[in-house]
Amino acid sequence: MKVMPEAQKETATASVSQRPLKPTLEGDFVLDHHLFLESGRTLCNPTLHYAVYGRLNAARDNAVLICHALTGSALVHSWWPEIFAPGAVLSLEHDFVICINLLGSCYGSTGPGSVDPETGQVYGPDFPLISIRDNVRAQSQLLDSLGIRRLRLVLGGSLGGMQALEWAIYDPDRVERAAIIAVAPLEAMGLALNHLQRQAIQNDPDWQGGRYLPQSPPRRGLSLARQIGMLSYKSSELFADRFSRNPNRNGEDPYAHDDEGGGLVGGRFDIAGYLDHQGQRFIDRFDANSYLAILRTMDTWDPLASGAAPAEVFGRIRAKLNFVGISSDWLFPEASVRSFAEIIRSAGVSVDYREMVSDHGHDAFLAEQAELVRLLQ
Amino acid sequence: MKVMPEAQKETATASVSQRPLKPTLEGDFVLDHHLFLESGRTLCNPTLHYAVYGRLNAARDNAVLICHALTGSALVHSWWPEIFAPGAVLSLEHDFVICINLLGSCYGSTGPGSVDPETGQVYGPDFPLISIRDNVRAQSQLLDSLGIRRLRLVLGGSLGGMQALEWAIYDPDRVERAAIIAVAPLEAMGLALNHLQRQAIQNDPDWQGGRYLPQSPPRRGLSLARQIGMLSYKSSELFADRFSRNPNRNGEDPYAHDDEGGGLVGGRFDIAGYLDHQGQRFIDRFDANSYLAILRTMDTWDPLASGAAPAEVFGRIRAKLNFVGISSDWLFPEASVRSFAEIIRSAGVSVDYREMVSDHGHDAFLAEQAELVRLLQ
Repeated sequence: MKVMPEAQKETATASVSQRPLKPTLEGDFVLDHHLFLESGRTLCNPTLHYAVYGRLNAARDNAVLICHALTGSALVHSWWPEIFAPGAVLSLEHDFVICINLLGSCYGSTGPGSVDPETGQVYGPDFPLISIRDNVRAQSQLLDSLGIRRLRLVLGGSLGGMQALEWAIYDPDRVERAAIIAVAPLEAMGLALNHLQRQAIQNDPDWQGGRYLPQSPPRRGLSLARQIGMLSYKSSELFADRFSRNPNRNGEDPYAHDDEGGGLVGGRFDIAGYLDHQGQRFIDRFDANSYLAILRTMDTWDPLASGAAPAEVFGRIRAKLNFVGISSDWLFPEASVRSFAEIIRSAGVSVDYREMVSDHGHDAFLAEQAELVRLLQ
Repeated sequence: MKVMPEAQKETATASVSQRPLKPTLEGDFVLDHHLFLESGRTLCNPTLHYAVYGRLNAARDNAVLICHALTGSALVHSWWPEIFAPGAVLSLEHDFVICINLLGSCYGSTGPGSVDPETGQVYGPDFPLISIRDNVRAQSQLLDSLGIRRLRLVLGGSLGGMQALEWAIYDPDRVERAAIIAVAPLEAMGLALNHLQRQAIQNDPDWQGGRYLPQSPPRRGLSLARQIGMLSYKSSELFADRFSRNPNRNGEDPYAHDDEGGGLVGGRFDIAGYLDHQGQRFIDRFDANSYLAILRTMDTWDPLASGAAPAEVFGRIRAKLNFVGISSDWLFPEASVRSFAEIIRSAGVSVDYREMVSDHGHDAFLAEQAELVRLLQ
């Protein structure tokens, strides 16, 4: 960890407290043509919603691209604030930070809830499969339009890390450094978890084959999907520590015969109350079809899927790569991230691998930002 | 491992091959009074369905009780055949083996699908919460009726292990030895997994609040519940090894835009095809309300829930206990089983703890029976 002189630290803290974090600009970029997708389909004039922080310098080489995870948004200050901490990975004095909402999302970029300009209808279940590479190609056009020549750093965790690595492969001359956190191509257990979440939504009769109305979305299915996801983002240790076998904090009794719920469904344990609450919060902020769309983006990312040799796929990378695996992560197990990083290093790429020791599971990159920032320095 | 003389081994093998494994008797025992339950409710004249193998000796002290797990049945030879292997834990020459179907199940004992003699109606969601202790008390009356004085051994894995330990606590003078495999009171992650499975069933509109007709059960919900359960019975390592990122073996393409499924739901990976198949097989053999009932039996088992000291609860045990924890088990983590065994040992009980090293996860006690048998010897 770099030690900052006390005086400098005070100034930095003061400067942050004076300027509450918010984007310099939040905007939409519309591609003026079709985006050809890896699946063979196209998207007509898709929109990318993005946010920027700080200012691009005259040399146009101070840009940092932050890539968000599954259900994140372009507003990186709201979900990854400590990445901006003075003396951390970024400096709003010197860097120009950009974050772009994923295609498929419901936070401003074109997704299943958008109108297809070619049909005048909402995409719904006809929204095509969007790959990580498709996102990177679209993002590249947005960076061009902003005049960004070089990316000093691309970083992201989980699905964000998939984008960061894909950037380093796609445009080797543009990326100086990429930080890839808690990610590797999904293994069978991760694919299984996504399969269950998908079914939870599809099983909800309100899903209507994806043609639900905005006012009657598949709430219960999306809530259950989120709860399945939550298990994979956290760890047994964390849950045991936080919830133990305590009854739900609202006073329900898991040991009683519950007349209202019937004998088969009783009072909840605290962990169940917590999960229900997380599910409830999620359905207020996310769209079921967007969730399905991005699950597929996640499932299908595997740079080696074509069967090409690692040297061929990764050998073109010029960026320095920083990989971080999380000790208690079982969605993207530490060993899996480590061996993926090793494969890329064997292709002749400069790879630094670090393990983040945490009980927080996959979520540690969001839950323990200070420690992550320390590892990235 | 006890080495058996070759001659004896041959005789034993021959004797088993001559006699295909089947119960000496499969029967129903009806309690002739109300069973008072820990929840304060009662069950009127409940039935216990059971199977026995071998014969009770004149001293009535050669009985072995095998307790089944969540969705097992009294027909232990069908799901745990290797436990009968010659030279293993049991001998059909010398032992009288009994296995009793859990209350709440759909395999012959009284459950939610049974008719309540007091109302003439199917219990459905009014079926009461049955604890492990309730099961043991009912089983005790069946053993009395069969004239069984002593239990040379009680053994079981998972929910079966809960019963085995509860037997040693409930009737210390009757139990000589108890083998308790891959179990401890559920921790928060296990409670969470059960909570999700419960929701998967409840979310299915065909569940009808538990009042579905036998011909229209909540198939999709029960299938999803089983698939969530399957994840917790297996391990990431096993899945990675068996399924990797392969496309489903029927030829589906996870990378294609699928016109039939819509762009949001594409071709499946092999792990997804496997899970769907497991879900499908399960709905053909199990009942959704029974599943809910036994999940609660599992959730609510915690011998220390009353707050009593371990010495008070476990100090009365006279049986020798054999605990086995499974290295890759994340439903009942090895560390959790180990520390639970340690608590009981600290109460002055004779406890032997062994770790079963396996990639099979919780299921190892069914998937690697030969190794389990070796550990129990």
